[in-house]
Amino acid sequence: MAQKPSIPKGTRDFGPEEMAKRNYIFNTIKDVYALYGFQQIETPAMETLQTLMGKYGEEGDKLLFKILNSGDYLSKISDEELHERNSLHLAASLCEKGLRYDLTVPFARYVVMHRDELQLPFKRYQIQSVWRADRPQKGRYREFYQCDADIVGSDSLLNEIELMQIVDTVFTQFGIKVQIKINNRKILAGIAEIIGEPDKIVDITVAIDKLDKIGLDHVNAELKANGISDEAIEKLQPIISLEGSNGAKLNVIAGVLQGSETGLKGIEEIKFILDTLQSTGLNNEIQLDLTLARGLNYYTGAIFEVKALDTSIGSITGGGRYDNLTGIFGMPGLSGVGISFGADRIYDVLNTLNLYPKEATNATQVLFINFGEKETTYCLPFVSQLRKAGIRTELFPDKAKMKKQMGYANAKHIPFVVLAGENEMNEGKLTLKDMQTGEQTLVTIEELTTTVLK
Amino acid sequence: MAQKPSIPKGTRDFGPEEMAKRNYIFNTIKDVYALYGFQQIETPAMETLQTLMGKYGEEGDKLLFKILNSGDYLSKISDEELHERNSLHLAASLCEKGLRYDLTVPFARYVVMHRDELQLPFKRYQIQSVWRADRPQKGRYREFYQCDADIVGSDSLLNEIELMQIVDTVFTQFGIKVQIKINNRKILAGIAEIIGEPDKIVDITVAIDKLDKIGLDHVNAELKANGISDEAIEKLQPIISLEGSNGAKLNVIAGVLQGSETGLKGIEEIKFILDTLQSTGLNNEIQLDLTLARGLNYYTGAIFEVKALDTSIGSITGGGRYDNLTGIFGMPGLSGVGISFGADRIYDVLNTLNLYPKEATNATQVLFINFGEKETTYCLPFVSQLRKAGIRTELFPDKAKMKKQMGYANAKHIPFVVLAGENEMNEGKLTLKDMQTGEQTLVTIEELTTTVLK
Repeated sequence: MAQKPSIPKGTRDFGPEEMAKRNYIFNTIKDVYALYGFQQIETPAMETLQTLMGKYGEEGDKLLFKILNSGDYLSKISDEELHERNSLHLAASLCEKGLRYDLTVPFARYVVMHRDELQLPFKRYQIQSVWRADRPQKGRYREFYQCDADIVGSDSLLNEIELMQIVDTVFTQFGIKVQIKINNRKILAGIAEIIGEPDKIVDITVAIDKLDKIGLDHVNAELKANGISDEAIEKLQPIISLEGSNGAKLNVIAGVLQGSETGLKGIEEIKFILDTLQSTGLNNEIQLDLTLARGLNYYTGAIFEVKALDTSIGSITGGGRYDNLTGIFGMPGLSGVGISFGADRIYDVLNTLNLYPKEATNATQVLFINFGEKETTYCLPFVSQLRKAGIRTELFPDKAKMKKQMGYANAKHIPFVVLAGENEMNEGKLTLKDMQTGEQTLVTIEELTTTVLK
Repeated sequence: MAQKPSIPKGTRDFGPEEMAKRNYIFNTIKDVYALYGFQQIETPAMETLQTLMGKYGEEGDKLLFKILNSGDYLSKISDEELHERNSLHLAASLCEKGLRYDLTVPFARYVVMHRDELQLPFKRYQIQSVWRADRPQKGRYREFYQCDADIVGSDSLLNEIELMQIVDTVFTQFGIKVQIKINNRKILAGIAEIIGEPDKIVDITVAIDKLDKIGLDHVNAELKANGISDEAIEKLQPIISLEGSNGAKLNVIAGVLQGSETGLKGIEEIKFILDTLQSTGLNNEIQLDLTLARGLNYYTGAIFEVKALDTSIGSITGGGRYDNLTGIFGMPGLSGVGISFGADRIYDVLNTLNLYPKEATNATQVLFINFGEKETTYCLPFVSQLRKAGIRTELFPDKAKMKKQMGYANAKHIPFVVLAGENEMNEGKLTLKDMQTGEQTLVTIEELTTTVLK
């Protein structure tokens, strides 16, 4: 009995055209990473649950795809344990492995396991799938690619600068205009310190972020509602209404943060990054944004985010500096900084703005029509010759109706079709049809090669 | 408390050098596939168990990695079912999804689900990981890549011919000398038919395969032990002692198979393939081998296998023609033919024979030494200029000791190092050190670019 096949929800098949586009995205990012000296690694799809659990918060643990132990997985489980029906607890006995949830934890695990082979600073990139048992919805999948680059083992701000250059180069190559936003955890910590509310960093940034939408009075009301004192709110006023150039903003913040060593350090870092980038030159605008917080508990220095300007798709790249990535695996004191390109969202932006270069989606360049065995025998050496010249060439395998063969060429967007019958065979030539103009020309194989390569 | 991290047994991390080599292998194969008009697809790592189960035999079902259902996976399981402790039965309730076991079944599922979008014949390639809960051992992993190309929807033998040309081209590019072996299921069926033992094809091919090792008498004894009649063994003699050129072998077999329509059809197919390949020319030898059976139940026409000649690693590529790939998913009558390159074994062969081209493992081309902030500011525009010229360039991020920075260049096999201090800054130049010769030259950025690109 035939089954009607399906795929698990939240997963996708990628057909030839989608793959060509995705390869264009991945290859562009890879080439830029390599241009900056990053080297690729790959880690297994499965990691031990010991490696994965407890790294993504309680919610994250639930979203891990766990793999049932092989063989007689029940043999070590007691009747009591089965009977308890504690899903989470039992899962730990049923499963030892899970699918990777991001590329950062496997990378940390990799660095610790391979510490003796690695030359620090280690600049690695990694482009692989991750899996999350999230509720699928538009633009959110249970299997998706991440494209991460990180440098570990260097505190230098030159790394932050290079990552911003990489972002700028990649999006320039894609033809996507972006705004790069930058912030620094130390500035946020300084602000919280100065107003005497070190635990309220998140509430403050969330409230500030709403200024455009709800206005100053409502922002202040929200801060008050979150338990922030009148005095602290008073001190926050210049920061909430922050406007103007990056330099002007930094001056205002520096005034507020005079008493905070951490805060001033953050300002110094951002200033160095922005000044250096200004002197080397970026194609896209980079803007200081104090409301940028992205996984605040994680980042310890710079925080970045990239938004596409001509669409409403939101963040398409993000990253920042973190300390002690590998501490959890017994290797403390290693600082790192990284970025992650959101390939699925970039794909959507490129589609929306129709920015794929023509070459990216081109596959076969020449199709030889099959008129039967005699004609095929005549064509085969020419087919080989074109392939040797690097031209992607097909010979239709079956002697099908002309309409079907031409339909095949059209469906695959093949730009040139070759026809060879009695006439061509007598003259030792081929008829080349340009599928765009419809023009047909009797040519030698050399002329054909030249035309296609042009 | 720090955990000592590990990875699941049978899985591997791939570091930068291994990745560079693997990319070289995958890119070579991809480019050749594309040259022949194959297009890439990707399918999800997870498939429904309905798609996977029952496709790889009973043993295969056990080797599937199954994924525990998310959320409260116990809620639909009765106490009775838990208590039964039937591992296999309970797994079907605990899990709905599994990791893909090969690329063929997902491809069949893909073809059926996307039948309306596909232009037949459909030439696809797919390079993705597969997972098997096999006992790990040397050269056998629980996660490994397959590199498959298949054409479905065409019965033409031109497809078999193209696959052989692909094999020949790929291994020529790798510099691996191979022997391509070809057989045809129809010939084997014809032999079994003629000797009146249609069920004994496998026994017969296994016995014939031992001729070199155990000699004719022992082969005949083994056939007899397998219940094959004296008369049948007598008829098999010319086939067991088959020697000489492909043509000579085909003549002998044709004599034996006179009464079998199927057998003669097989001979005709092989003859057409071999004759055509001879006229177009292969770099590697192709040999008719009647003992080649590879998953006999699966293949219905041509069967191929490729062995590397200068190592003892065995089969590195295989494939064949199959019918009714998609029948199990409700789409009967679709014939296909495909090959699969064994990337892990090719990797081993290239390592053993040291055949990687130098470019394949090269990463960064130029490293700028970091002498401090002033020197860095001087170097940054040059670094950008080299990257714009497509040269993979790094600036060491920290002002570390010279020895450490040179050690970094050596460890990463970076061929050129740039030094710029007081002198160079005064002259607007750079000192370029060739790491192979040790030679240092004072150059302009233009001279540097030319030297590196040379």
